Amino acid sequence: MDKLLYGVAYYDEYMPYDRLDTDILMMKEAGINVVRIAESTWSTVEPQDGVFDFTHTDRVLNAMHKAGISVIVGTPTYAVPTWLVRKYPDILAITPDGPNRYGARQNMDISNPNFRKHAEIVIRKIMEHVKDHPAIIGYQVDNETKAYNTAGPEVQKLFVKYMQEKFKSLDVINKEFGLDYWSNRINNWNDFPSTVGTINASLGSEFSKFQRKLVTDYLTWQASIVKEYKHPEQFVTQNFDLDWRGYSYGIQPDVDHFAAAKAMDIAGVDIYHPTQDKLTGIEISLGGDLTRSMKGGKNYLVLETEAQGFAQWVPYTGQLRLQAFSHLASGANMVEYWHWHSIHNSFETYWKGLLSHDFEPNPTYNEAKTIGKDFERLSSHLINLKKKNKVAVLFSNEALTAFKWFGFGWGSKESYNDILRPLYDALYRMNVGVDFVDPSSNNLEDYKLIVVPALYAAPDSLLQRLNRFVKNGGHVVYTFKSGFSDQNVKVRTSKQPGIIEEACGISYSQFTIPENVSLKGDPYNVGVEKNKVSTWMELITPTTAKVLAYYDHPVWGKYAAITENSYGKGLATYIGCSTSTAVTEKIVEGALKKADLWGLDQQLSFPLITKSGVNEKGKTIHYYFNYSSVASSFSYPYKEGKELLSSESVIKNKEIQIEPWGLKIIEEN
Amino acid sequence: MDKLLYGVAYYDEYMPYDRLDTDILMMKEAGINVVRIAESTWSTVEPQDGVFDFTHTDRVLNAMHKAGISVIVGTPTYAVPTWLVRKYPDILAITPDGPNRYGARQNMDISNPNFRKHAEIVIRKIMEHVKDHPAIIGYQVDNETKAYNTAGPEVQKLFVKYMQEKFKSLDVINKEFGLDYWSNRINNWNDFPSTVGTINASLGSEFSKFQRKLVTDYLTWQASIVKEYKHPEQFVTQNFDLDWRGYSYGIQPDVDHFAAAKAMDIAGVDIYHPTQDKLTGIEISLGGDLTRSMKGGKNYLVLETEAQGFAQWVPYTGQLRLQAFSHLASGANMVEYWHWHSIHNSFETYWKGLLSHDFEPNPTYNEAKTIGKDFERLSSHLINLKKKNKVAVLFSNEALTAFKWFGFGWGSKESYNDILRPLYDALYRMNVGVDFVDPSSNNLEDYKLIVVPALYAAPDSLLQRLNRFVKNGGHVVYTFKSGFSDQNVKVRTSKQPGIIEEACGISYSQFTIPENVSLKGDPYNVGVEKNKVSTWMELITPTTAKVLAYYDHPVWGKYAAITENSYGKGLATYIGCSTSTAVTEKIVEGALKKADLWGLDQQLSFPLITKSGVNEKGKTIHYYFNYSSVASSFSYPYKEGKELLSSESVIKNKEIQIEPWGLKIIEEN
Amino acid sequence: MDKLLYGVAYYDEYMPYDRLDTDILMMKEAGINVVRIAESTWSTVEPQDGVFDFTHTDRVLNAMHKAGISVIVGTPTYAVPTWLVRKYPDILAITPDGPNRYGARQNMDISNPNFRKHAEIVIRKIMEHVKDHPAIIGYQVDNETKAYNTAGPEVQKLFVKYMQEKFKSLDVINKEFGLDYWSNRINNWNDFPSTVGTINASLGSEFSKFQRKLVTDYLTWQASIVKEYKHPEQFVTQNFDLDWRGYSYGIQPDVDHFAAAKAMDIAGVDIYHPTQDKLTGIEISLGGDLTRSMKGGKNYLVLETEAQGFAQWVPYTGQLRLQAFSHLASGANMVEYWHWHSIHNSFETYWKGLLSHDFEPNPTYNEAKTIGKDFERLSSHLINLKKKNKVAVLFSNEALTAFKWFGFGWGSKESYNDILRPLYDALYRMNVGVDFVDPSSNNLEDYKLIVVPALYAAPDSLLQRLNRFVKNGGHVVYTFKSGFSDQNVKVRTSKQPGIIEEACGISYSQFTIPENVSLKGDPYNVGVEKNKVSTWMELITPTTAKVLAYYDHPVWGKYAAITENSYGKGLATYIGCSTSTAVTEKIVEGALKKADLWGLDQQLSFPLITKSGVNEKGKTIHYYFNYSSVASSFSYPYKEGKELLSSESVIKNKEIQIEPWGLKIIEEN
Repeated sequence: MDKLLYGVAYYDEYMPYDRLDTDILMMKEAGINVVRIAESTWSTVEPQDGVFDFTHTDRVLNAMHKAGISVIVGTPTYAVPTWLVRKYPDILAITPDGPNRYGARQNMDISNPNFRKHAEIVIRKIMEHVKDHPAIIGYQVDNETKAYNTAGPEVQKLFVKYMQEKFKSLDVINKEFGLDYWSNRINNWNDFPSTVGTINASLGSEFSKFQRKLVTDYLTWQASIVKEYKHPEQFVTQNFDLDWRGYSYGIQPDVDHFAAAKAMDIAGVDIYHPTQDKLTGIEISLGGDLTRSMKGGKNYLVLETEAQGFAQWVPYTGQLRLQAFSHLASGANMVEYWHWHSIHNSFETYWKGLLSHDFEPNPTYNEAKTIGKDFERLSSHLINLKKKNKVAVLFSNEALTAFKWFGFGWGSKESYNDILRPLYDALYRMNVGVDFVDPSSNNLEDYKLIVVPALYAAPDSLLQRLNRFVKNGGHVVYTFKSGFSDQNVKVRTSKQPGIIEEACGISYSQFTIPENVSLKGDPYNVGVEKNKVSTWMELITPTTAKVLAYYDHPVWGKYAAITENSYGKGLATYIGCSTSTAVTEKIVEGALKKADLWGLDQQLSFPLITKSGVNEKGKTIHYYFNYSSVASSFSYPYKEGKELLSSESVIKNKEIQIEPWGLKIIEEN
Repeated sequence: MDKLLYGVAYYDEYMPYDRLDTDILMMKEAGINVVRIAESTWSTVEPQDGVFDFTHTDRVLNAMHKAGISVIVGTPTYAVPTWLVRKYPDILAITPDGPNRYGARQNMDISNPNFRKHAEIVIRKIMEHVKDHPAIIGYQVDNETKAYNTAGPEVQKLFVKYMQEKFKSLDVINKEFGLDYWSNRINNWNDFPSTVGTINASLGSEFSKFQRKLVTDYLTWQASIVKEYKHPEQFVTQNFDLDWRGYSYGIQPDVDHFAAAKAMDIAGVDIYHPTQDKLTGIEISLGGDLTRSMKGGKNYLVLETEAQGFAQWVPYTGQLRLQAFSHLASGANMVEYWHWHSIHNSFETYWKGLLSHDFEPNPTYNEAKTIGKDFERLSSHLINLKKKNKVAVLFSNEALTAFKWFGFGWGSKESYNDILRPLYDALYRMNVGVDFVDPSSNNLEDYKLIVVPALYAAPDSLLQRLNRFVKNGGHVVYTFKSGFSDQNVKVRTSKQPGIIEEACGISYSQFTIPENVSLKGDPYNVGVEKNKVSTWMELITPTTAKVLAYYDHPVWGKYAAITENSYGKGLATYIGCSTSTAVTEKIVEGALKKADLWGLDQQLSFPLITKSGVNEKGKTIHYYFNYSSVASSFSYPYKEGKELLSSESVIKNKEIQIEPWGLKIIEEN
Repeated sequence: MDKLLYGVAYYDEYMPYDRLDTDILMMKEAGINVVRIAESTWSTVEPQDGVFDFTHTDRVLNAMHKAGISVIVGTPTYAVPTWLVRKYPDILAITPDGPNRYGARQNMDISNPNFRKHAEIVIRKIMEHVKDHPAIIGYQVDNETKAYNTAGPEVQKLFVKYMQEKFKSLDVINKEFGLDYWSNRINNWNDFPSTVGTINASLGSEFSKFQRKLVTDYLTWQASIVKEYKHPEQFVTQNFDLDWRGYSYGIQPDVDHFAAAKAMDIAGVDIYHPTQDKLTGIEISLGGDLTRSMKGGKNYLVLETEAQGFAQWVPYTGQLRLQAFSHLASGANMVEYWHWHSIHNSFETYWKGLLSHDFEPNPTYNEAKTIGKDFERLSSHLINLKKKNKVAVLFSNEALTAFKWFGFGWGSKESYNDILRPLYDALYRMNVGVDFVDPSSNNLEDYKLIVVPALYAAPDSLLQRLNRFVKNGGHVVYTFKSGFSDQNVKVRTSKQPGIIEEACGISYSQFTIPENVSLKGDPYNVGVEKNKVSTWMELITPTTAKVLAYYDHPVWGKYAAITENSYGKGLATYIGCSTSTAVTEKIVEGALKKADLWGLDQQLSFPLITKSGVNEKGKTIHYYFNYSSVASSFSYPYKEGKELLSSESVIKNKEIQIEPWGLKIIEEN
């Protein structure tokens, strides 16, 4: 990537009247230098079976090229045309709730042969048609792809085949999955029942893993088709997305991001988040750290983020700028809005773009113009920022899925991401740069501290690797429920926390739900309310560990809540219960200090956020963000440099003011 | 109508033993002079296919006639017999939730040919049998008819036919409905997918419109059959009902009342409402105003209202009287209870009638006796009350449906009626007489003030008509979201609020959800709590309008919340946000005063309610109701007259006492 | 039974590795002298159609026998194997929600002929194989059996047949069930519609009764097969369970316990309940009283209860002991945990056993060891405790089902058990021993006081019997809604409360939902809050009754809330409204005193609970339990005896200390 990209999604197909030239003029004014087009427009490009119409694609490509705006072309496959479903009704996925209905996007069975056949036809036709167009810098395959819970009879056949290949023998499955329970034993491959009704977490989790594999396989297949046509300098990407809670929240349950990203040249992501008084930057940071980590620290593309978005997200003055530069500070090389203008019909009419429905300039668009100018002016300073973090968060899709089955008990609502987020948030608020690793990562040794939330399901090998990591001098912070079951969601028959007991120096075999339980003696000085323990507590007995906190309770008071253990050259902290945000931060702070990771950036904390990296010139860039509606200031602690937005020079220990929702970018000399 | 009707629904079919003579004796004591019979009794009148049994009908008709009690005969079609469903299972409607099951009423597809064939047979048989019976004063066709969300394949075919006839070309539909979005484009009529799964609000809303047309067509068809037989002096009516929230709440989403009422000679309605401490009279007033407006101000029938009703509705002493006369005050010529006695089996066992399950006199029945006597005595004074209102509420089923798709954002629960009701309620509480108009009304010019809640979807022509109305001297009060989209639920590409921008003198292109937002400076003097803005706010810039209230907020403070604009000879008020009841009342009060509509009745307010009209003798009747458990008094401001219940004469400025839940009726001399 | 049984459920089939010998060693240490095996293991014992494998059964039987541990063998039929469902998919019940899916237990149609055929095969094969094994003391048929809401077409045919046999004529059904309503009339047996969609409570309740009969018939059938093989000294039992609200709450809606227990030699039950600070002993007492009453006061088996159970149930120190002896105090001869060890896979992984997943000793297991020792040591004193109670609670499955249809109105959540439980709980807290009777019981005369909650549906004969009971000197406490409808859920056409009006000396025909209603003058001295009336109130007029409390309300103040009536030699108390726990206790206390049932045990109250009975030696045993975390003491009021746990002798009026969650057992000399 040779310049920062500032972009919008653009759908000529959806326009109520021809506005292409006017739109391009307005884009140029805003510094937009890339548009993403064509995903989800299958019915326009192939209005009938085998009939193709490239009118919209051609005119947009040509006009953009003429205007000097680059284009990312998306394959249109995540929304199926009416004629296709009429021809092959079985293209609609059968989920546990029954067959899907026509209407929404992402309703298909991505493993369906007829879907695959026609997806391939339309992709090849498009590629053949556009491949040599000079406006195109890259391709996006599909969009926010998942398996959409496809689980019909044909998918079940594929699953049984997958199980045969993976486990070879039913005896192994019966044993490892515990299928004797409630007569679920399978004695003949032909008897393999649909997993839709299963009450066996091992089987259910394996089916989820299989569904995630469908996603990886499907994206790899799409990428391989596109690669047959694309030019070497063009990239293939996918728009990955996060766990959705009305906004981007955490690890995506339905995709193995690290696996699926392998087939991509560059990772892409969409990140949506609350704004106004609720803007914190956490989702921008988390989504960025995750996407950057997908390709081993390579810079990434923010393929979608909000301009106005939902009504409740209309940004305050300054917020659009703050957001845009926050993406860059996490390593993004592109910030692209979904979408240029607001749509006049259908589902996302109130998911507003940079322009409102009237296509006129508005405060949000006007602020975008300042961003576009700054992106262009500062591109060479801000592009390709390299980050080197000493802290990683270990996440696991296997643990996440298993936790859905066995979280805090029937009826509990907390999920894996509810445990991961407070830890990530604590690190964010303390201005600690973070990467993500997953069980497939082989670079654990690059880090001094690894934070491990609720690693509920994991193979022996991973836990042993973590033990070795500590033994060799690494630091780990584990939460409760880590190590509890193996990769087949079979609970370990050893004492808990299973294999990591060795590094953690503790054991337990009982656990309960806390009622009126606190940490004895308020060891983190947080006051009565914040000292409370909620949701889950393990009744821990230390073997070699030092107890950081005991429970305060007439019966459970003899058990440890939080422990720390020296093991080999390293240290393992274990959090045996759900703690308040304040306590969690204190525990993480303690672990950072023990790992000698408490530095200058930790003098600041949220809402003053700082991020840094090294730019292409080899110079260190320090971003400072004020995530609040109150002006603030800080003392700049690094060597002399220049604030890039103002071009003012900055010396060490200078007191720097930041306005509400403002930012500073300092490049060290 | 030549006398006030006081009636009950009566089902000889449901009686646990023969009570006809005793019941008639007790009815006569209570002044009951009309009964409604036979709806929902298909399985009794036609116990088997083609086998008819008129025993119950005949004996009731004869006995009632002998007792001088009139009869309204209902067609029995809203509940289907077992043999019919066994013969044609497809009579049960297929809804988005799947095929209906046998058991409940209103489970059929009213467009099903087999249902229609057998409905016609049973209606004709009944009509042939009863048509010359002297007890009969009119007929009710079906009951609370709707399309019951019928949406199966056969209905879909009818819908596609309707779309072809209405739009002619798929290109028009694709364009106007924005079907290119998410590949929903339809390129061949044969590809037209079921609307059940649609995520396109334009298509979904059109399907709802089509379903309402099924209702109109079906009722018109039934009425036409009955009219072949009925005598000229007999009427045909239908029992319309309102949006149901455990009681009659607002505009009925599933029926175009004004269209469907065209085929009726007289409009009928059922009105159910809370009582005891929650009795306000609002539903009686709203239901009455709406039903009276269906036939251009003609008096109407209350075909059903509660006697005891649900357990929580057992009326306090005086309430049954208060309710009965409140119906008359709105223009009803009949008050009929559902139902005479309480039922001993099945679904509505706890929906109690005038008599409890023991058939004995009880406090409610005893109070009914006083009502029957007064109705008879005062009939000539109170019947055929004519009302002439200067204020109308413009409602729209199209806007209501579109608002379901695009209200205040995903997950919000407020519906169109939640916006209409506070405005209606404010008018009611201020004792302002109101008519209803809808987009088909051609009498807008009869009014001085039109209140327009959330007219979210409307054709240009309607908005232009409203502009003209203001220009010519009319007053309009609009709420937020009015004018936003066209009749196809396509958002206008102009600035908002679309075409009415001209009369309102404002524009906006952004809107948000208020958090900690008030009206600047408490302009209506309502105090901190009531001054808050909730749910929705448009960021309005006045062009020619005067700002009545700005938002109080650090960022949004520059935008207008409530405006008023002189346009031509008239005035348009625009409410850009959700306000408290207190503020809404103040805005409406202001608009009434500007429109010179603040009169003597406005000296009183809820719980003292007054309604008036002109009786057949040309004299003005003033009703005064005390909707509270506390005795009250007021000064009578009109010319000398007589209080009809007591026969006392009343002079101007006389202080009149009303007991708790009491009423006075004064006829001017 | 010649010794107290202390047991665990044991599944060799589910073990992650071979632990049989170790487990038996640990069992012996804990005093476990019985295990229950084999229910739900069909897929292991018959891995393929007609292929049988008794490996697990044999090795467990042999090893247990060798160790002197007895065995209860369960038929495996409540969970079906994969091959069976593959062969006969129709074995999965069709419920109103559609066909069940494979996976869970209890998903079958117990009336399905194919299921029955294969269930019989596997039962006979097992019985043939094990019948002479000396370890076996009894058999459990199926487990927690219900009809699982089976309602498919084949079940419907059986239901129609049942209706023909029971009612003979459709005319009777149409009349008694009120099917004319909403055209539900059935004029031909062939037209009989599925009851799945019915809105007729009479029909729906009859179908529930039919479903309960399916359970009785199925269990009787299984028991009859087992009895062909079993030895005379071996018993057949069934594991009955209670209404489940996350724990055992009240009367089981889906089984007629008294009818189904007829085919059993001894009644069994599972009882699960909250522990820690929420442990009250009520469920242990209620479940015990009910199960003991199933077989006319015979001692019973607790076939399942929790050891650790759910995370939130891990017992405090002392609670496992307290629970175990509480079961004995209610008449249990066996206490058996579900289950020995915790399971490593599938649904109930977090329903923990005596051992955790690590199979090591833990505090819960260690406490069990003390119980086992005491059971063995005191067996001859504590076994076969006989109880003779003067108070009975009359429950009715018919009333329970009818109350589901007609409780406190649409949308209300209270069920029959919500009315029964406060009455039972009041008796428990006052240390009043209780039996249960149902409409089939012919021993009403054994009691001095019968408590009758919400007997909503009952035949004339039962109400007349209750009238006679009072006339002859009995005391009855009725709640609201009793007597309201007949056995067909047809509301009585007389004044309410129907036939019992005679004994109660009251009548009413109206009722409402109380808002701001209390009892006039706080007649029970409970203070403002507890004096409030909620949920339901009948507007009662006494005829001969004495009014114990009037309503306090401006309109309803003239009506009685609670009354008492002398009738013949007895007394009937009627509670016409929902009262607070405090008032309910006072009413019950009053009734007990009037019945001369206020004795020495009533000097104590919860959390000090006492239960008593006569042991095999003819001596009276007094149990004293401290259901609280605070040590307590009481004065022993009976004749001299011995505290069995400590072997200390106890004289009358001795002050005895009980530790938190502690107990004492005193045997009178």
